[in-house]
Amino acid sequence: MKAQLSIVKIGGNVIEDAEALKLFLERFSKLKGNKILVHGGGKRATYIASKLGVPSKMINGRRITDADTLEVITMVYGGLVNKNIVAQLQGLNIDAIGLTGADINSIYSEKRPVKEIDYGFVGDVKKVNHQSINKLIKAGFTPVFCAITHDKKGQLFNTNADTIASELAIALSKLYSVELYYCFEKNGVLKSVEDDNSVIEYMDYGTYEMLKHGGAFHDGMLPKLDNSFHAIESGVSRVFVGNPTIISDKNQKFTTLYL
Amino acid sequence: MKAQLSIVKIGGNVIEDAEALKLFLERFSKLKGNKILVHGGGKRATYIASKLGVPSKMINGRRITDADTLEVITMVYGGLVNKNIVAQLQGLNIDAIGLTGADINSIYSEKRPVKEIDYGFVGDVKKVNHQSINKLIKAGFTPVFCAITHDKKGQLFNTNADTIASELAIALSKLYSVELYYCFEKNGVLKSVEDDNSVIEYMDYGTYEMLKHGGAFHDGMLPKLDNSFHAIESGVSRVFVGNPTIISDKNQKFTTLYL
Repeated sequence: MKAQLSIVKIGGNVIEDAEALKLFLERFSKLKGNKILVHGGGKRATYIASKLGVPSKMINGRRITDADTLEVITMVYGGLVNKNIVAQLQGLNIDAIGLTGADINSIYSEKRPVKEIDYGFVGDVKKVNHQSINKLIKAGFTPVFCAITHDKKGQLFNTNADTIASELAIALSKLYSVELYYCFEKNGVLKSVEDDNSVIEYMDYGTYEMLKHGGAFHDGMLPKLDNSFHAIESGVSRVFVGNPTIISDKNQKFTTLYL
Repeated sequence: MKAQLSIVKIGGNVIEDAEALKLFLERFSKLKGNKILVHGGGKRATYIASKLGVPSKMINGRRITDADTLEVITMVYGGLVNKNIVAQLQGLNIDAIGLTGADINSIYSEKRPVKEIDYGFVGDVKKVNHQSINKLIKAGFTPVFCAITHDKKGQLFNTNADTIASELAIALSKLYSVELYYCFEKNGVLKSVEDDNSVIEYMDYGTYEMLKHGGAFHDGMLPKLDNSFHAIESGVSRVFVGNPTIISDKNQKFTTLYL
């Protein structure tokens, strides 16, 4: 039987609120067994970019990553956010280690091909080096990933944090029974985005496809669910979607996804 | 017999010059055996700070690290500089991993006590966790340290990169025969700071003390030499001071320090 591994992805709403982040990290530190944290960066990068005079370019809600924006992302996600989370986890006796996909060549990606849109320095994940990551886990370390990858030729890339979480989950399913948690500002996948109590507690692939084609999901939800079902199809044991407290409190509504 | 470990410290002059950094990393990648890279950050942090409206405060050539300055340092040293070096080394087939002292609790420090000067968030190194660092080396990874430490309570600190290099060298001397390289813009310790050919090729502790009391060393050189002799007294096999090419080319002048 494979050992358990929990992979938890947190988004900007937790990171930007110092008190919420502290509470979340306390919960995360108490999570038993092997674990990995994946974080986004969110508005902090936008704020720093604007102070540095780097304009934020968005197309269809997606960031266009030019060279200056990539520098800001590397500073904010890879430095400021990642290292402060690592320091806080160390204060909670979690032997954390902060990583980009370049570190130990953990996540190799290729520059997204230019079709209608040139996303700039955005990398699509091609290979997760699960053996190297497992060396860290086996050494007793808790990896903390930011949403940066690399091309093994010296170039860093901006990569969606939800995708990083699911790709890590898929690759590490070869070695572990993986539970993937997508934590965000809602209580789960909602029937009605206005009603935070309208949580769909169980969602299978058929329901997902039906709702998707009906246009039920908003922009932020869709890639999360696409990533989730891709993960389940690829060997990840369970995927949960909900607010950050679900990692230790299952006595509440949240969404469990299954095939 | 202990295995060899080379610890190489590079300063701002290499980091700020993209071509010089590329050439140095190529040399570093060819260095045989176990190795660790330690880098400063230098003027890049000052530049980013000024663009963000964070004033750089210096007293006696030392940076005063207030909360805003620490944020900039965490971004620039821990993120921008460190992760780009890691990515470039990966491109050279070195399995690099970027670290602050918070990662794997590798370098524990305490806030410098306030005497005449309050240096702010500056940490004095108290303990290097050589066992944890050795797990990374044994796994085949090449640690790349920036000059940031932590107090194991969630607080990051700015720490002198020369000191980090010597403290790493001392701690890892318990496990390895360590050679420490301080690489900077000069060819070594100079008799006359105006004459780059006036390299003192061998310097023992007595000569160092004599020259020091004669006021022969400029501000940047003194802590490097203090750190170097502290390292040699504490078990480090050899300390070399010179330009970045000395790590692979010994057919030139440079300074070797000994007791």
